[in-house]
Amino acid sequence: MKDNFKLMHEDGKARAGKLQLKHGVVNTPIFMPVGTQGSVKTMSPDELKDIGAEIILGNTYHLYLRPGHKLIEDLGGLHKFASWDRPILTDSGGFQVFSHSGLNDITDEGVHFQSHIDGSKHFLTPELSIEIQNSLGSDIIMAFDECTTYPAEKGYVRDALERTTKWEKRSKEAHVNSENQLLFGIIQGGMHKDLRKESAEQIIDIDFPGYAIGGLSVGEPKDIMFDILDYTTEIMPQNKPRYLMGVGTPLDLINGVSMGVDMFDCVMPTRNGRNGTVFTSQGRINIKNAQFKRDPKPIDENCDCYACKNYSRAYIRHLYKSREILALRLNTYHNLYFYLNLMKRMRRAILENRFEEFKNNFVENYKN
Amino acid sequence: MKDNFKLMHEDGKARAGKLQLKHGVVNTPIFMPVGTQGSVKTMSPDELKDIGAEIILGNTYHLYLRPGHKLIEDLGGLHKFASWDRPILTDSGGFQVFSHSGLNDITDEGVHFQSHIDGSKHFLTPELSIEIQNSLGSDIIMAFDECTTYPAEKGYVRDALERTTKWEKRSKEAHVNSENQLLFGIIQGGMHKDLRKESAEQIIDIDFPGYAIGGLSVGEPKDIMFDILDYTTEIMPQNKPRYLMGVGTPLDLINGVSMGVDMFDCVMPTRNGRNGTVFTSQGRINIKNAQFKRDPKPIDENCDCYACKNYSRAYIRHLYKSREILALRLNTYHNLYFYLNLMKRMRRAILENRFEEFKNNFVENYKN
Repeated sequence: MKDNFKLMHEDGKARAGKLQLKHGVVNTPIFMPVGTQGSVKTMSPDELKDIGAEIILGNTYHLYLRPGHKLIEDLGGLHKFASWDRPILTDSGGFQVFSHSGLNDITDEGVHFQSHIDGSKHFLTPELSIEIQNSLGSDIIMAFDECTTYPAEKGYVRDALERTTKWEKRSKEAHVNSENQLLFGIIQGGMHKDLRKESAEQIIDIDFPGYAIGGLSVGEPKDIMFDILDYTTEIMPQNKPRYLMGVGTPLDLINGVSMGVDMFDCVMPTRNGRNGTVFTSQGRINIKNAQFKRDPKPIDENCDCYACKNYSRAYIRHLYKSREILALRLNTYHNLYFYLNLMKRMRRAILENRFEEFKNNFVENYKN
Repeated sequence: MKDNFKLMHEDGKARAGKLQLKHGVVNTPIFMPVGTQGSVKTMSPDELKDIGAEIILGNTYHLYLRPGHKLIEDLGGLHKFASWDRPILTDSGGFQVFSHSGLNDITDEGVHFQSHIDGSKHFLTPELSIEIQNSLGSDIIMAFDECTTYPAEKGYVRDALERTTKWEKRSKEAHVNSENQLLFGIIQGGMHKDLRKESAEQIIDIDFPGYAIGGLSVGEPKDIMFDILDYTTEIMPQNKPRYLMGVGTPLDLINGVSMGVDMFDCVMPTRNGRNGTVFTSQGRINIKNAQFKRDPKPIDENCDCYACKNYSRAYIRHLYKSREILALRLNTYHNLYFYLNLMKRMRRAILENRFEEFKNNFVENYKN
């Protein structure tokens, strides 16, 4: 696929674009709900469409371990398996190997790790990561990289950066289905601008149809994160989609867009929803709090999602206290709607050259 | 409300009718999904409508303890609280007091019991049960009774029967909203035909717009249950709806209808669904079994519900193994659809004078 990304408009550094993928068009800036194990937790595919989800994310690490990529391929690929006919992005599994599995051992060849499910031993390489993602059939697949955490020794960050470049070259060589699946590269380099520059140059040199910024939101203070982000987007190509991995809060999304990011994913709306935390135009609240016991208002009075049109805070709080699954469903539904709607509103503001005004307005009302 | 029940057709002892309630018409024979705590577990009200649910059940015991009937009344009643605008039936709380709570102590006045939530002490009387149900605003409310289990001493069953008659009289006297809420009486008498006759005569003498058969499916063998049921429906009024409480399996529903029952409720489709057991036209299967690991077929090839149209057994099994909530949703959705569809098919067969043929056909294919 050539010219799959069309940059439609810029308003400051904020961008509005269109990304043509095998299973449909994605309007950027976009947020991707996370469907780790082939399901966006508590949601059905129909509900995801109701709230306007255009692309979801699947986790290679989890799907490789269970049910296995060969099983999914035999059953027609991840889209058919999960009954989702819109685009899917899968990650490389690298990040999950470090954060989820037991003992892991990094060599130049790949990563030895133990399954968090049964302790079985596995060896993940760039080639295996791409093989898995080819089997899954996702529209966007990610190169295999090493994500460093914060804080980290600069020397280690440089080693990881160099290994990442080699792994991403091998990822591109291993990719057999570039006609239907776009392979994105990932820029690393930790919290060091010189290393970010070095990584960006090396990764861009490999030439991918899209680039991710990895290794942010890994424990560092927000000001450092955004300083590095703002620097990195400056040195990324204009005509390719930019994906900030694993970020973030509503304010993070707004700041990210203002710095020229096109794509985001994060478990925050889904995980927070299950824990009782819901996002509103005034900030976050926890629906389990006693103050909502008799509250007839919806989660967010400014929201027109299914949950807000039909249910009171009192009812949802009751469902939580009673451990009813509908509570998790309604909160997740609302939170994802809130995120996707925020992206849509940002996109419209960009197209109408009033992004800065929109941003200031949102930030002023949003308290935490 | 007068003449709220219209018996439309009989085919043998099986009946098809219409029951006009405050929030709509219910076509009998009917199955009522159980929404114990103000939610049919895992389901949204919209999904209940999708699968054709015409009436759901709420549990007085649970809603009294949490969030409290006064809170629900303050927020506009159970229909508004739970965003369900079709009919609701609530039980009296009596059965749940015996099965769920700690120490309980029965006097002629009522039942002392401890909350299963916080151990707090409560005293449930016919008057309080009706007050709670009046506050909830359900379309059908149940008289307060004492349900005996199996086996039980005949002397005790007789005592409980007599107490039940007194309690049901007091229930009727306490009921303040007979214009909008139908109060059903309950016939007890255990596994003794002479006591069933005695109870039926006393309860029918009080005069209710509908009657339930209580105290069946409480541990007795199926042949005893159906012998007592067949006997009891013989001595119940023809022109009033008949409700068999807490029953049962698909075969129980078919046998119940064949003996002249109009209404059923049971946690079986919802609870089994959550445990992985799904009903098919060939019998029950457990979707977690290894044999379904790579099975591309739907739960039931003869079913056209949302779950069966969109998902394979392999996918649902994967969701179970991965503890994804969508697994519980899809199984519950399918099981309730299976139950409600079975009722619809029975109703059609009755109206077309081929119920016996339908029953034989179903039983022949249904293996467990």
